[in-house]
Amino acid sequence: MENKETSIGGENQPSKKGLKKQQKAAEKEAKKEARKQAQGEQQASQEEDVSKGFYGNMPMIQSTERPDRTILDLKDLTPSLKDKKVWVRARLQTSRAKGKQCFFVLRQQKWTIQALVCVGPNVSKQMVKFSAGINKESIIDVEGFVRTVDQKIEACSQHDVELHCEQVWVVSSAEPRLPLLIEDAVRPDTDDALATVNQDTRLDNRILDLRTTTNQAIFRIEAGVCKYFRDFLMEKDFIEVHVPKIISAASEGGANVFTVSYFKDKAYLAQSPQLYKQMAMTADFDRVFTIGQVFRAEDSNTHRHLTEFVGLDLEMAFKFHYHEVVEVIGDMFVHIFKNLRDNLQEEIETVGRQYKSEPFKFLEPSLVLTYKEGVRLLQDNGVDMGDEDDLSTPSEKLLGRLIKQKYDTDFFILDKFPLAVRPFYTMPDPTDKKWSNSYDMFMRGEEILSGAQRVHCPELLTERAKEKGVDIQHIKSYIDSFRYGAPPHAGGGIGMERVTMLFLGLDNIRKTSMFPRDPKRLTP
Amino acid sequence: MENKETSIGGENQPSKKGLKKQQKAAEKEAKKEARKQAQGEQQASQEEDVSKGFYGNMPMIQSTERPDRTILDLKDLTPSLKDKKVWVRARLQTSRAKGKQCFFVLRQQKWTIQALVCVGPNVSKQMVKFSAGINKESIIDVEGFVRTVDQKIEACSQHDVELHCEQVWVVSSAEPRLPLLIEDAVRPDTDDALATVNQDTRLDNRILDLRTTTNQAIFRIEAGVCKYFRDFLMEKDFIEVHVPKIISAASEGGANVFTVSYFKDKAYLAQSPQLYKQMAMTADFDRVFTIGQVFRAEDSNTHRHLTEFVGLDLEMAFKFHYHEVVEVIGDMFVHIFKNLRDNLQEEIETVGRQYKSEPFKFLEPSLVLTYKEGVRLLQDNGVDMGDEDDLSTPSEKLLGRLIKQKYDTDFFILDKFPLAVRPFYTMPDPTDKKWSNSYDMFMRGEEILSGAQRVHCPELLTERAKEKGVDIQHIKSYIDSFRYGAPPHAGGGIGMERVTMLFLGLDNIRKTSMFPRDPKRLTP
Repeated sequence: MENKETSIGGENQPSKKGLKKQQKAAEKEAKKEARKQAQGEQQASQEEDVSKGFYGNMPMIQSTERPDRTILDLKDLTPSLKDKKVWVRARLQTSRAKGKQCFFVLRQQKWTIQALVCVGPNVSKQMVKFSAGINKESIIDVEGFVRTVDQKIEACSQHDVELHCEQVWVVSSAEPRLPLLIEDAVRPDTDDALATVNQDTRLDNRILDLRTTTNQAIFRIEAGVCKYFRDFLMEKDFIEVHVPKIISAASEGGANVFTVSYFKDKAYLAQSPQLYKQMAMTADFDRVFTIGQVFRAEDSNTHRHLTEFVGLDLEMAFKFHYHEVVEVIGDMFVHIFKNLRDNLQEEIETVGRQYKSEPFKFLEPSLVLTYKEGVRLLQDNGVDMGDEDDLSTPSEKLLGRLIKQKYDTDFFILDKFPLAVRPFYTMPDPTDKKWSNSYDMFMRGEEILSGAQRVHCPELLTERAKEKGVDIQHIKSYIDSFRYGAPPHAGGGIGMERVTMLFLGLDNIRKTSMFPRDPKRLTP
Repeated sequence: MENKETSIGGENQPSKKGLKKQQKAAEKEAKKEARKQAQGEQQASQEEDVSKGFYGNMPMIQSTERPDRTILDLKDLTPSLKDKKVWVRARLQTSRAKGKQCFFVLRQQKWTIQALVCVGPNVSKQMVKFSAGINKESIIDVEGFVRTVDQKIEACSQHDVELHCEQVWVVSSAEPRLPLLIEDAVRPDTDDALATVNQDTRLDNRILDLRTTTNQAIFRIEAGVCKYFRDFLMEKDFIEVHVPKIISAASEGGANVFTVSYFKDKAYLAQSPQLYKQMAMTADFDRVFTIGQVFRAEDSNTHRHLTEFVGLDLEMAFKFHYHEVVEVIGDMFVHIFKNLRDNLQEEIETVGRQYKSEPFKFLEPSLVLTYKEGVRLLQDNGVDMGDEDDLSTPSEKLLGRLIKQKYDTDFFILDKFPLAVRPFYTMPDPTDKKWSNSYDMFMRGEEILSGAQRVHCPELLTERAKEKGVDIQHIKSYIDSFRYGAPPHAGGGIGMERVTMLFLGLDNIRKTSMFPRDPKRLTP
């Protein structure tokens, strides 16, 4: 791999200054290139060009025709196609001219292959020059022979073959100056000697950043999280529902809620689908899940907060004990973890090459501890806290480490939280009102699900709201929805981006949100 | 089925007046009932109650214990369980006392069964009285013997058995007064003699309305639409992505967009995921789909507009011709229609019992006509319009009928719309700029998908925006996203609620949105 390229926005140099300097250098380079090309063309016009009609800029593809041409995927280029002539369409990741040859690395999502354009009976000097002048990240079509190689090409996913090109066409040209280089963006931060790309530069130029093999893998894994969440629940007779995001009242309290102008009125963006999931329970759907945006107007600029994220929510009626639900959720996480591990191994390894982390460990069935037991473990390890105090973020982290040491699992369920630290709609414990029928679930010491048995009795709900100082008038319709017979039910909400982040051991939630939103970022 | 009950909010009486009258009647009834019950209890205390401990109000289920009790689903109560003693938990749909007997209809989602509590060796008079006094729509647990019946019980889904109860417990009581009756809410509007429920009453009391077998079926079918959409696309290597709903600029024009307060700034709710799907294309994801809320601040109060709906969106890079994409989408719809038809037949029939309609017809492969051909068909049938005029809604409807007559299909694709009626980012036809590489898809004469090849070349995009009078400054970042090499691509957006509505031949989109939002409705 070449790594002497200058990278704009690399972390190893003062970002803005470096940027300007490199812009100038790049402009100079581009001008030089243009000059050279002009000279080349002049020269070329003097010689006969045997490759004429076999290279160049393709007209914009406007669906003019539909040629009977098979274009192969890079992943299918293996020794089984030895000496076959094939077409491929791919990005030009890097190119390097060397005498009468030009070496390409072509990229398609996570696959790469080496290609070369080399002066010969069917390839003119002019064609090699043209090829050498193609801007990186352009999309090109090449036709060539698949040739096996003597020595494995370690830098490419297709180790055993390379492509000897006889046609080279630019389908869509990238600008000569790129705000970041893909090979910098995919480099581990730990590699001190070489340029990497800082997070804001990445996010400002997200469409380039997303082209890295790491990001191609991350978002395939995230799609897997959703798929396995759904698969498991549908198998268990859960029904997918969709619930509104624009709501008339800030059901979970006025703080941290975004306001929307709704014609001549005011409305709010839902902070969770909770009320609607519960209404689905009182409407006899019995087991529902919903995947959708959740909005939090929290001015938190941390590694794990977003103002908009994807909630994987579920709610389930049970017969006698909310543990019926806790067990389903625990099994669901095991299903997700196992399937990611087994079906997306290659993607997980790809991410690991850039961002090192320990493989995610879990038990089957999942480990369940009571809040009391969790606090005891912390107290035994020097944390000064009362039995019913809320867990601080550092305590959660520590608890995760202690449990990992003791039980060898990165996933666990903490059951029976103190009632005082939970919302008013949480069902109190039947024997001791200090506690509640509620639970959180953790991955690598960070909370990824919060849930509970909900109060399904309107009288108790009213009483609890009053005790918590919630204005009864504001939640009247919520309370009323339990007046026509409600089954006991429990559920929970999961942050999709957090699950992906923590499964992969990443350090920032912005890495698992395709176009993240935080108090300071609304673009792209 | 009993139908002499008064229904609050029925369509056959003046709604508000009727409501008051019935409220009074219900209150009177409730008082009478209470009196009777008190008397009954007095009387009961004088006799010995053989059923004591076998009926009553169950304490609120607070997860106190987890008894080893199997509770069966109604659907599993068949003659194979003849004379077995079983527990079930269900809603009390109707009850009717008759001498020493009380007849129940119990309901669980779409299943119903007849049950009876009858004075006998293990069942006291007091127990029968208690049973007769349970409010409709309460959730109850009953234990009883499964008995086969001589004559089919036509009114219940479980025709061949009834349940002879020996225990009756109220798990969660409904209030005595219901704003609507389930048996009214499920009645065809065409049944003039009997009460039905008007739409606003339904939506105001959505949790009751959703309990009807019709609604239980509708939302299972809608979940099917999403499932088969995803299944087909994942099979074709599409990746699921999630894109932001809060955006910094009203990308599709300032009209019809909701404004959000974003900390100290202003932001907007996305009118479509279009820009982000396209960015996924330039970011090499190649084939993506996304399911999520779409927001339109249109003050349209029609049968087919919502201010918030669920978009099933997809975008796909193609090699040479956007028809590669049209074919995938056409096949996808066939996949959805076939699977709904084959896997949800019972649900489709259930909906049909309340809302009559012709079965949905489609061809395989899908019918594709050009816009020109569509207009010709209309002109030949007396519609006065120019070749490149936009289609009015009535024309669309008529076209649907004409095509149904001619081709016997309720689904078709209209290809190559006039460029003038499409957004600036639509790719013009390569041979005639009057036309464009764009298409709509229709079900029963209503548009359910709009899509096109997008302009992927920044220069042409700029030119087209200028021609359409779009302010270049506002869409700069959109245009810039194509500057680093973009594959030709096409896609489309589908309204989930419209697909469900039109597949089932329903007359209003509010029937297929669980909690609909329109300019006048923000609750529940």
